[in-house]
Amino acid sequence: MASPNTRERILLASLALFNARGLAAVSTHKIAAELGISPGNLHYHFKAKQLIVGWLFRRFLEPLNGSSAAITAIDDLWLALHLRFEAINEYRFVYRDMAFLSSEYPALGQRAQALTAQNLLAAQALCEGLVVSGVIETSAEQARILALQMVFTTTCWLSFERLVPGRDALAQADPGLAAFYTLTLISPYVSRESRAYLEYLRGKYLG
Amino acid sequence: MASPNTRERILLASLALFNARGLAAVSTHKIAAELGISPGNLHYHFKAKQLIVGWLFRRFLEPLNGSSAAITAIDDLWLALHLRFEAINEYRFVYRDMAFLSSEYPALGQRAQALTAQNLLAAQALCEGLVVSGVIETSAEQARILALQMVFTTTCWLSFERLVPGRDALAQADPGLAAFYTLTLISPYVSRESRAYLEYLRGKYLG
Repeated sequence: MASPNTRERILLASLALFNARGLAAVSTHKIAAELGISPGNLHYHFKAKQLIVGWLFRRFLEPLNGSSAAITAIDDLWLALHLRFEAINEYRFVYRDMAFLSSEYPALGQRAQALTAQNLLAAQALCEGLVVSGVIETSAEQARILALQMVFTTTCWLSFERLVPGRDALAQADPGLAAFYTLTLISPYVSRESRAYLEYLRGKYLG
Repeated sequence: MASPNTRERILLASLALFNARGLAAVSTHKIAAELGISPGNLHYHFKAKQLIVGWLFRRFLEPLNGSSAAITAIDDLWLALHLRFEAINEYRFVYRDMAFLSSEYPALGQRAQALTAQNLLAAQALCEGLVVSGVIETSAEQARILALQMVFTTTCWLSFERLVPGRDALAQADPGLAAFYTLTLISPYVSRESRAYLEYLRGKYLG
């Protein structure tokens, strides 16, 4: 009989392998070999690689839901972005290997698109809230473009980082630095009272 | 004897297949089958898939070199960005499948990193030139961050587009729209004289 924890061990090992070697390069045989279990044992728990990817994708989505709690100050925003980048970093194969994921598993690709749509709405609500709170000053159209730029950055920044010289192609990124770079998008619109916190972050990450 | 054009036909078919189905999913056998030639004939021209990818990568780089000619007006910048996105779109598998490319072919991954470094320097020179020409007004540090945001956007925007609902995961994008979105990054800094052109583009793409 399989240990009750085998299923969980398979998911954790798969996540580590997908992150480290890429979704395309890791077969269920490699996952079984990594765990020292037979392919048959793995197959007992997951009939196909797609099912493992699907479970990991659902876990990736969990912390991203409901994270758009009221943000009315720039340090709250930095923290929310930091947590967002940490979640994306933990499951970094998802966005990084999205082209492969969505062509191999179209249903997951559609869910990733639905997530983007949801992120865009949440970012728009966020930017409108920041205007109301007086953190930024923008027109309605600037706020919409800002929301788009923020979703683009949170989605793709960690993929871009691997293209910067000196960085390991598959390594972890710094979520705090990523959050700071995202904040630079709103910096032209930040009101005088909120600017001090941006200056503090600037000193921390660029200084 | 192989036709003198077989080599070129292999490269063009490979580019189309990599773009349409993803670098990971296309083997040399699939390329040969697509062309109706034998695997042996393909092997005569290219001993390994890596060599095909390497040739296409070099062609991808060609139009990107020397494209940082003096840009002193915002419509020149829009055109340069448009051409950049067209070049990236034509070889869209490169940035889209970068995680796979750089783990399978580390030498090409390093060249992609070198390209990013070069793009960052060119974008910094560009932004400094825009300040000197009076197109934008920024501090030296804002100009550096702007350059980083522009390189990030030109590199990753087409990959992000496939995550927006309603778009085909592997389809072509609109280079003009992508160029406009990149220009929205500089819009907070644009001087009054250059704003009219941004308004014209806004009407064309968001209108």
